[in-house]
Amino acid sequence: MSAALVTLGELQRALGGELIGEAGRSVTAIAALERAGPDAITFLAQARLRPLLAASQAACVVLKPEWQADLPTGCAALLTPDPYLYYARLTQWWAARQRAAAPKGVHPSAQVAEGVRLHPSASVGPFAVIEPGAVLEAGVVVDAHGWVGEGAHLGEGTRLAPRVTWGAHCRIGARGLVGSGAVIGGDGFGFAPAGGAWIKIEQLGAVRMGCDVEIGANTCVDRGALDDTVLGDGVKLDNQIQIAHNVQIGDHSAMAGCVGVAGSARIGRHCTFGGAAMVFGHLEIVDHVHVAGASVVMRSITAPGQYSGIFPLDDKASWERNAATLRQLHQLRQRVRGLELDREQQP
Amino acid sequence: MSAALVTLGELQRALGGELIGEAGRSVTAIAALERAGPDAITFLAQARLRPLLAASQAACVVLKPEWQADLPTGCAALLTPDPYLYYARLTQWWAARQRAAAPKGVHPSAQVAEGVRLHPSASVGPFAVIEPGAVLEAGVVVDAHGWVGEGAHLGEGTRLAPRVTWGAHCRIGARGLVGSGAVIGGDGFGFAPAGGAWIKIEQLGAVRMGCDVEIGANTCVDRGALDDTVLGDGVKLDNQIQIAHNVQIGDHSAMAGCVGVAGSARIGRHCTFGGAAMVFGHLEIVDHVHVAGASVVMRSITAPGQYSGIFPLDDKASWERNAATLRQLHQLRQRVRGLELDREQQP
Amino acid sequence: MSAALVTLGELQRALGGELIGEAGRSVTAIAALERAGPDAITFLAQARLRPLLAASQAACVVLKPEWQADLPTGCAALLTPDPYLYYARLTQWWAARQRAAAPKGVHPSAQVAEGVRLHPSASVGPFAVIEPGAVLEAGVVVDAHGWVGEGAHLGEGTRLAPRVTWGAHCRIGARGLVGSGAVIGGDGFGFAPAGGAWIKIEQLGAVRMGCDVEIGANTCVDRGALDDTVLGDGVKLDNQIQIAHNVQIGDHSAMAGCVGVAGSARIGRHCTFGGAAMVFGHLEIVDHVHVAGASVVMRSITAPGQYSGIFPLDDKASWERNAATLRQLHQLRQRVRGLELDREQQP
Repeated sequence: MSAALVTLGELQRALGGELIGEAGRSVTAIAALERAGPDAITFLAQARLRPLLAASQAACVVLKPEWQADLPTGCAALLTPDPYLYYARLTQWWAARQRAAAPKGVHPSAQVAEGVRLHPSASVGPFAVIEPGAVLEAGVVVDAHGWVGEGAHLGEGTRLAPRVTWGAHCRIGARGLVGSGAVIGGDGFGFAPAGGAWIKIEQLGAVRMGCDVEIGANTCVDRGALDDTVLGDGVKLDNQIQIAHNVQIGDHSAMAGCVGVAGSARIGRHCTFGGAAMVFGHLEIVDHVHVAGASVVMRSITAPGQYSGIFPLDDKASWERNAATLRQLHQLRQRVRGLELDREQQP
Repeated sequence: MSAALVTLGELQRALGGELIGEAGRSVTAIAALERAGPDAITFLAQARLRPLLAASQAACVVLKPEWQADLPTGCAALLTPDPYLYYARLTQWWAARQRAAAPKGVHPSAQVAEGVRLHPSASVGPFAVIEPGAVLEAGVVVDAHGWVGEGAHLGEGTRLAPRVTWGAHCRIGARGLVGSGAVIGGDGFGFAPAGGAWIKIEQLGAVRMGCDVEIGANTCVDRGALDDTVLGDGVKLDNQIQIAHNVQIGDHSAMAGCVGVAGSARIGRHCTFGGAAMVFGHLEIVDHVHVAGASVVMRSITAPGQYSGIFPLDDKASWERNAATLRQLHQLRQRVRGLELDREQQP
Repeated sequence: MSAALVTLGELQRALGGELIGEAGRSVTAIAALERAGPDAITFLAQARLRPLLAASQAACVVLKPEWQADLPTGCAALLTPDPYLYYARLTQWWAARQRAAAPKGVHPSAQVAEGVRLHPSASVGPFAVIEPGAVLEAGVVVDAHGWVGEGAHLGEGTRLAPRVTWGAHCRIGARGLVGSGAVIGGDGFGFAPAGGAWIKIEQLGAVRMGCDVEIGANTCVDRGALDDTVLGDGVKLDNQIQIAHNVQIGDHSAMAGCVGVAGSARIGRHCTFGGAAMVFGHLEIVDHVHVAGASVVMRSITAPGQYSGIFPLDDKASWERNAATLRQLHQLRQRVRGLELDREQQP
């Protein structure tokens, strides 16, 4: 994405940092270090990438003061103790400058029910449907094809991308961001067995999210059975995630794509889950737990730390041999025990 | 979700059971046993939770007759041999009482093609699209943003939540329930290889579902290649599930979130699959098979029972050691065999 | 799906091959070999299925010339060196004949912004939204409930099924096919940590796809952070797939349902991934790599071939024993080493 000319001085005034170089020099793009041309600003966030600096063609590099000596001649710099965070702020500033704001008010094609509480600065896009009793606070955006159920509440500045389904009575705080195709407040999966069939348990709870929550595309967060499903402040969920009914996720925990969390699991604060990690139901995970992608949490985790459980990839033939042996692993241990006992009995 | 006042007598008349206590006593909520206040009705379904009963503040507990002695003083009871099933019926009664029925008829913004067979009691929501030749029987609901393809058939009382895409010629029986974002009748994934490229095999089959089927949010059921993909009566699929073309799922089988079933797998009746279980294609699973979450079914299962295959979670360092050794497991077995042979050859 | 009468002569003229039998004989369906009745054409693609041929009731079988001797009396044949490819072409011909073409032009209910470049032969369905600056080339179909963002580009003949969300500035070449519920160009999942919270990195790149790409239902392809996410020509993605930001997938690679690929992974050409395979981020996979379903790629793969990593399924009790032992596998190896050392030290 390219932008109109931006001077380094403008950037420095907006985002802070110490500018080394000419304030009037301009850039038109943000680019990765190895690909930044003379029209681009880039950043160096990891010490291991310092060797790339010398060959960079970038107009300006965001980096730590102590790395300044590595700058190639003629390359400007913005010095900051946390270049990655600076880069994040820079992308926000850049996007805000480039992207058109959502038009205030209700698109003529949208269906907004009587009795919706709609702030004048809120935006409702084409073919959106807002059901009775919903509340859309200041700056809320419900983009095209959105659906907001009865009595739902969207906090200040929360934005729903095109085609989000937001269930009845579900709530989110300020500055939320919900990706296309997300379904919030679908029915939890609950049935009572009866004579071989399944009798539906209607899901009477809702979903409650804090502030600064981000939900990815096509992610589902189910409504609770009796109580609510709860996501704390600053929770970030990537795409294609499934959060079952009555799950609780603590503040600032983050999950990468394709994660699944089964019903009533309680997850602490500041946890991270790699892609496709799975969490079984009715268990508890304390704060500051980090689960590797594609790992399965079958029991509660009571100590912070890093956890993993992934079958190692191998060429198919080797895998077949090892997997076959794995099915007799317990027996193999018995055989080793047998050998050890024999040894102990030797004179 | 709170309700207007409901008396215990009303509940008993609607749902049966033996009422112990005053019929005129009222409740306003259903709540979990450990959180039920004096305005709530709750239930006790598991013997292991009986110790919680004594401290309960609930107005009324649904429980087995033989547990009646544990009731705290002043707490009413509804006695029933299957409290969990009673609870399911209670939630249904509760929801029906609280939720507005879908308005009969076609929303003015919807697009219903000529020649659609629409029962007068059916409901078509805002911005829904019904293509030619579709049949919507009595009480069918196609909610906002729904799409029903040509020649599709929705059985009596079947409800599509907002934003369901229901493919051409796909059929479902009575009392179905389909979650938001579900895609029924997308193309199966079939290609013929040709000179390094993939040539599409058009998918000419459809999807056929029985009665009392529930499909979760963002779940996909693909149409068959030549024959149909078939889901039996009472099948329950949670969210984010992928059912590939030509799969057959027997009556009353249930799958939790994120399960995937590859093409042409045939699954029996009364099976259950935990979340994120995966089933390979072209295999057969008999009735009454229960597969643990995150397990992979690579071969046919010919005997009923419980199956599992999950790499155990561990702290990362331990996992790394064990995973590395796992890649040499077959060799380790050879080494043990070597030791055993040596032992056998000892005098 | 049944069709009006089609004669074998018509088929032969349209699709080639050598016809053995009467050109005037007609069929009304394509069917699998074991189910084809006297009104159907079928195909034999695998040598191992030749024994089924003798009992076939089919009107005509597509097969290799060298299998002709196995034909039952009275059964016609279409001889071709690649019967499976012929079958693929047959389904395409069949579907084109049966399915109504999308109506050219813009449905009156659709919202097409000023300044959209819309070819007269393109089709925009009910309630679709096309944002400013988008380009829809000849024969493009955006079906009902589609959303095409600002500056997006859909190449000649590309079709979006009902309810696709196609992000701003994302591009696809000719003859693309995108399934319902797909989300192209959602935000990549990028955050800078700051004081325990996550600061959003706006995703400024887009998605770029080549020609002949197929994307399944409810699949997500995220936009890049700074550069684009790139899918080469002929890439085929099944349903429920998650492709993270900055991923690159080479020409003619194919992925089955529920696959996940984490950020910045680079995947070669002519690779295949079984269902629910997971690829970690920032790694590289060379051309012609084939990964089994449900396997996890944690490191770069530098040699073509078949790879696997799946925990074998077992009855639950056996699995429990083996999984418990697996957690002590490294220790077991140490014990075997101890036994071996003892043996070496024996006289």
